[in-house]
Amino acid sequence: MLVNSEGRFISFEGGEGVGKSTQVRILVEHLVNKGINCIQTREPGGSSGAELIRDLLVKGGTDKWSPISEALLHNAARAEHLQSTILPALKQGQWVISDRYIDSTLAYQGYGQGVELETLLKLHKISTDDFWPHLTIILNGHELGRAKAREDENSDKEDRYERMGEDFHSKLQYSFLEIAKNYPDRCIVVSAEGSIDQVAARILDIVREKFKLK
Amino acid sequence: MLVNSEGRFISFEGGEGVGKSTQVRILVEHLVNKGINCIQTREPGGSSGAELIRDLLVKGGTDKWSPISEALLHNAARAEHLQSTILPALKQGQWVISDRYIDSTLAYQGYGQGVELETLLKLHKISTDDFWPHLTIILNGHELGRAKAREDENSDKEDRYERMGEDFHSKLQYSFLEIAKNYPDRCIVVSAEGSIDQVAARILDIVREKFKLK
Repeated sequence: MLVNSEGRFISFEGGEGVGKSTQVRILVEHLVNKGINCIQTREPGGSSGAELIRDLLVKGGTDKWSPISEALLHNAARAEHLQSTILPALKQGQWVISDRYIDSTLAYQGYGQGVELETLLKLHKISTDDFWPHLTIILNGHELGRAKAREDENSDKEDRYERMGEDFHSKLQYSFLEIAKNYPDRCIVVSAEGSIDQVAARILDIVREKFKLK
Repeated sequence: MLVNSEGRFISFEGGEGVGKSTQVRILVEHLVNKGINCIQTREPGGSSGAELIRDLLVKGGTDKWSPISEALLHNAARAEHLQSTILPALKQGQWVISDRYIDSTLAYQGYGQGVELETLLKLHKISTDDFWPHLTIILNGHELGRAKAREDENSDKEDRYERMGEDFHSKLQYSFLEIAKNYPDRCIVVSAEGSIDQVAARILDIVREKFKLK
């Protein structure tokens, strides 16, 4: 699918607590200060319908869904997000910076929960007409906030994925690096080590270089 | 997918208010009285996760979802329903009688909302490993309870599909007849005209004949 505009779509990917949402916010702030019209969004969610689906995915018991249902729900949310938020923004020439997109589904439902990557790619084609970001920043580093395995699954907290256990999470870092290898033109791995400002500076260099910003 | 058992899976299909749920209940009652172990279920829903998805689909504004998201949500619910309810019952030799299954997705999201049938069949393969009913009863007749176009979409009523308008509903009856033509070995069209008992007797004749019941 072609979007006829100057809009750019950048996704941030990585495991839990690696600092994605902070870095998304900093990049958006920087771009806006540069005079670039830009929106910050997230998955699962990012539109009114998709946020309803988010609730089903990020709260409750870790075994609440079969892996294939979970993949279908993420794709339903992504289709909504794309149609209602991402594509309209891009068509207006805005930049879209999203905290997660398709690679999280490949990592979490594919490598993590065992759905075949080929199946997930078929679903991506069905749900988005094969729409991919122009650039994906993969934040790589030690994850935080994962000592939640014993937390109450009946709470209203959005920590269902954080409670998925060490084995699941240990696959994620590896998965995102594999994905980066599979999509070398789109994905760039950025070390999440160091201060927030240091990481932000690394990301900004990449974005400047990729899109020829001054 | 093969299920190694004597269980049988029968789906009921048709438009809104054509009498499906009444006929499902009567058939289940009859089979149970014959000594056949059998469960009554429905879509969207039929398992705890799938009922959560049902809520997103049957309540609220008619334009709440894009057609493809709606198809993905129905498939997510169906995958849950199949894994948690239908397959375990069949494996125990129970009969499963469901108020709606895949054909409702073909009729409502395909013929009604314009998603390509080929796409819906791909999704069915992904979400169910191509699992189809042994028999589908398509109830055909005048639909009831459709003067709801002006009702409040913010109510908590499960009437989102009923509010979809005359044009949408006029396609449904035709769609189910087309589906019956496309799957002649599985689908049997039953007239919904006459008394409840008359319709029930027609259905019972078909079930007896199909499964060689005494």
